[in-house]
Amino acid sequence: MYLEKIDSPADVRAIPASELGALADEIRGALIDKLSVHGGHVGPNLGMVETTIALHRVFDSPSDKLVFDVSHQTYVHKMLTGRAFAFTDPARYDEVSGYSEPGESVHDHFVIGHTSTSVSLACGLAKGRDLVGDTYNVVAVIGDGSLSGGEAFEGLDWAAELGTNLIIIVNDNEMSIAENHGGLYASLAELRATNGESPNNYFRALGLDYRYIEDGNDEQTVEAALSKVRGIDHPVVVHIHTEKGHGYAPAVQNKERFHWDGWFDKATGESLLPTDGEPDYSELTYQVLSARMEADPRIVAISSATPIIMGFTPARRAAAGKQFVDVGIAEEHAVALASGIAAAGGTPVYGFYGTFIQRGFDQLMQDLCVNGNPAVLLSFADSARNMNDVTHLGIFDIPEFNAIPGLTYLAPTCKQEYLAMLEWAIDYREGPVAIRVPGAGVVSREGVALGKAGAAATEGAGPAWPLTPEIVSRGADVAILGLGCAFPIAQEAAAALEAEGVGVTLVNPRVASGLDETFVEELAGSHKAIVTVEDGQLEGGFGEKVARQAGPYGIRVRCLGIPRGYYDRYDPAELMASCSLTPEGVAAAAKELLA
Amino acid sequence: MYLEKIDSPADVRAIPASELGALADEIRGALIDKLSVHGGHVGPNLGMVETTIALHRVFDSPSDKLVFDVSHQTYVHKMLTGRAFAFTDPARYDEVSGYSEPGESVHDHFVIGHTSTSVSLACGLAKGRDLVGDTYNVVAVIGDGSLSGGEAFEGLDWAAELGTNLIIIVNDNEMSIAENHGGLYASLAELRATNGESPNNYFRALGLDYRYIEDGNDEQTVEAALSKVRGIDHPVVVHIHTEKGHGYAPAVQNKERFHWDGWFDKATGESLLPTDGEPDYSELTYQVLSARMEADPRIVAISSATPIIMGFTPARRAAAGKQFVDVGIAEEHAVALASGIAAAGGTPVYGFYGTFIQRGFDQLMQDLCVNGNPAVLLSFADSARNMNDVTHLGIFDIPEFNAIPGLTYLAPTCKQEYLAMLEWAIDYREGPVAIRVPGAGVVSREGVALGKAGAAATEGAGPAWPLTPEIVSRGADVAILGLGCAFPIAQEAAAALEAEGVGVTLVNPRVASGLDETFVEELAGSHKAIVTVEDGQLEGGFGEKVARQAGPYGIRVRCLGIPRGYYDRYDPAELMASCSLTPEGVAAAAKELLA
Repeated sequence: MYLEKIDSPADVRAIPASELGALADEIRGALIDKLSVHGGHVGPNLGMVETTIALHRVFDSPSDKLVFDVSHQTYVHKMLTGRAFAFTDPARYDEVSGYSEPGESVHDHFVIGHTSTSVSLACGLAKGRDLVGDTYNVVAVIGDGSLSGGEAFEGLDWAAELGTNLIIIVNDNEMSIAENHGGLYASLAELRATNGESPNNYFRALGLDYRYIEDGNDEQTVEAALSKVRGIDHPVVVHIHTEKGHGYAPAVQNKERFHWDGWFDKATGESLLPTDGEPDYSELTYQVLSARMEADPRIVAISSATPIIMGFTPARRAAAGKQFVDVGIAEEHAVALASGIAAAGGTPVYGFYGTFIQRGFDQLMQDLCVNGNPAVLLSFADSARNMNDVTHLGIFDIPEFNAIPGLTYLAPTCKQEYLAMLEWAIDYREGPVAIRVPGAGVVSREGVALGKAGAAATEGAGPAWPLTPEIVSRGADVAILGLGCAFPIAQEAAAALEAEGVGVTLVNPRVASGLDETFVEELAGSHKAIVTVEDGQLEGGFGEKVARQAGPYGIRVRCLGIPRGYYDRYDPAELMASCSLTPEGVAAAAKELLA
Repeated sequence: MYLEKIDSPADVRAIPASELGALADEIRGALIDKLSVHGGHVGPNLGMVETTIALHRVFDSPSDKLVFDVSHQTYVHKMLTGRAFAFTDPARYDEVSGYSEPGESVHDHFVIGHTSTSVSLACGLAKGRDLVGDTYNVVAVIGDGSLSGGEAFEGLDWAAELGTNLIIIVNDNEMSIAENHGGLYASLAELRATNGESPNNYFRALGLDYRYIEDGNDEQTVEAALSKVRGIDHPVVVHIHTEKGHGYAPAVQNKERFHWDGWFDKATGESLLPTDGEPDYSELTYQVLSARMEADPRIVAISSATPIIMGFTPARRAAAGKQFVDVGIAEEHAVALASGIAAAGGTPVYGFYGTFIQRGFDQLMQDLCVNGNPAVLLSFADSARNMNDVTHLGIFDIPEFNAIPGLTYLAPTCKQEYLAMLEWAIDYREGPVAIRVPGAGVVSREGVALGKAGAAATEGAGPAWPLTPEIVSRGADVAILGLGCAFPIAQEAAAALEAEGVGVTLVNPRVASGLDETFVEELAGSHKAIVTVEDGQLEGGFGEKVARQAGPYGIRVRCLGIPRGYYDRYDPAELMASCSLTPEGVAAAAKELLA
């Protein structure tokens, strides 16, 4: 038993080389024990065991600075820097985050969750070190698909200009979340095949010194190679070939599924996640897309390294052929590609996690929306009730998209509305449309008005469904606007208020990007108060637009949402309650305005 | 005289090869005639004359699609596609934009102003072509420094996967706006030195076929090379060596100044721009920075290819040595670099045009602000009264920055306040601070309260100067909040209202990222109405926050700003007036609320 005795990297250095294999085995056992019941990034960490041990034996952290990217491969680093308890003691599994976190340890230097950042951040540390007059080593670890991100390129390209110590470890496990994409990965394969000798060398072409290590899962080999670059006086790339999932057969055999897994049988690797048969939004999306793609060869689904979010399993990707494109981790390119496809007469449908599309903000603004090209964007996992790591929050999508002229942002309240909006968006040719795929779970609203089928039931100003709000019920006291997946909260609040005799107009805005001026004027003229309800950030959100539009009428308005801030590993129910984002909270806010 | 007879590329193809030199001379003459009195991108277009002629002789636009990047090198393309009048007839100089513009011609396919986009957009056209079943050539032109942008890399990396026709012209003029930066450019130099034979080849390392043309200013050479790739069945890079400013000695000798120039003596190249001795904000910024940098070696100024915006001329950059960094066109890297420098104890000051920092939105959110590192960000040219090309608008900065938790965004109203805020921000260690450098020209406010010097004169809630608003005058009827460079408008309106007997509280908010709740509550409780005034986009802007905060009090609020939209080559005074962003407009809005 080694882990319980490791309080700091000094303890790792004190272990005789002959016992490091046993340490690696123990680390793998702890990883599999924890992740099989707790969930987390399995394959990326199993592959990095030996390299991480070597890093801590060669470098003197925290004097020397190790910057991990993507930081979901820091579990082993955490075990070796005083945080093994969070992997060996089930009662303490939640005491560390899944990413690098300076709040936990002096061995972590940045909160990092999005990919492709380590080289640039490490360049900054190295430049700062030089300005301040320090002399420590700065080590960036990058890999697991992140090289395809533009920021990683920008960092590597600039690194050559630094001219002082910087060690860039490229963890080449031949994978992204799914398989790798892009010409670069073909040339990494060539480097692997030639033991690093191929003249076709991306890193050298960027002006960087370069070393290759074939057996990245042999600790002594890696340690020897790293020892040679310690204290180096210029930037160098150390390209290390590792195996994603190394040492655990199920993860080696099924690299994509084990990139992140939630609950599995240790012995067989079989998933133990419940499959209750109710399709989630990924599956629902795939069903619509596959039918439409089959009928129309001009429709193409685009992913940036997260194909499963749209239900595209490996088999389905293969079946879709040229109508499915995974660009790898490259959101900027994905947005521009979609714009170009639309300009050429194709129909691109680009699905992504809302947190990652921040990378494409300028491309949405310029490459796509200035041009008005009809691309369909599907933003997943947006809601304060979805991912709760500080680097993966689902509360910034509305401020981001709503800053962009020309982008219609739809917020369906339920499954039926989502599916109809998706069909509608695929057919819409007037400009780009984004849909906020409900991020708080699948909700059903039988009988909701859905365009062609239910247009007559739809009231409100503006053009045809879905570009006009749905007035669900009418009352004279307060108008409550429940946006997207926050609608059920507004609906319950309305019912409670009605039961108390308060007249409520319940509105499903449908369009997150803003309401027609005359619609708000009408609401302001026929009520005593307005309450807006959204499960995203208040600042820049939907409610603020309503407050501005209602402002001149002097009606009382209360915007409910999440106050601007970085929230980490919070309890979603608690956070929602603290922001009055509960039926009781909404009802209380309404009554306060009416008092 | 050829130009007046060229209505379309067919006319270019009809010119005998022996006369193309005369055509090129005529094009250069027209460029210099126009740009010397009108302003525009001089060097980039002079260098592209022969390549553009060759493109239109080899390819059949608009069937074949030419996508230019950065599209400020499209002047010659415009001359050859029916728009020569805008370069030969002074009365029609303003009839074309400075960038590619589908609204002008079927030969332009995208509105493009930001760099590094053409490869991705062209990938999209090519993919769309394949889906639709067309067979035309798609040609991307990239160069003039744009290869350092992450989006260009993402596009090149993916291009290899396309597998069908795509021709990428790399216009290598050895320059960005200023000199090139990054290791990539060293390897381009190696390719130039070896006539394209060096094994160190960035494009091949990304899996792309590659050709080199040494004499990119010889039309026949370029034409012959392009003829060989026309109809090619896979992606290919054609690396063309051109000379920025070719054919005009002053532009060749002073490549940086002639990247864009406003008014110059054709014979000597001497600038005729008035120098009235009043320093602008670039010069003012440099004066503060150079003094602080001299006193503290930990301070470093960072630019992403626009060093002049902070006053860093070539001589000053040389003098600053390691305390000045130009990362090239690489905003993502610049933000992460700044975060790393701050984490290592340095003080980074990163200055940029507000329109370009959109590229760094995710890096601001994640690499910098989640980490709370004390970097200073200076955002220039933000205002509806600054750049008025649709791709370079200065109205999106407040929505962008205000979406980001943890970022303090200051909006000085005048020179005195800006300089004091810059000094303050350099010393501030609590987190990242951005400053909206006034984008509507230098304004002086004698006696404005400036922290240490004037703290006693400052009222309002919250912490010390400048994090608290300035109450300039007190009145009982309406509170007018004039943000940053819109303050003078609010001030004049207040004076006019006071003269009419309306009691005005005039507020300089100082902080664009939002006011203290209690401050807004106090305003709402002591006035009949509130008017906010900003010269940026309303949606996501400063005013909306005030409207939301004031909402529960039922006070009338009117937010004045620019409605969300893409505005192109507008008259700033007209646009401002149409949005009530004049003293009269603000006063009228206030009176309407009070009526």
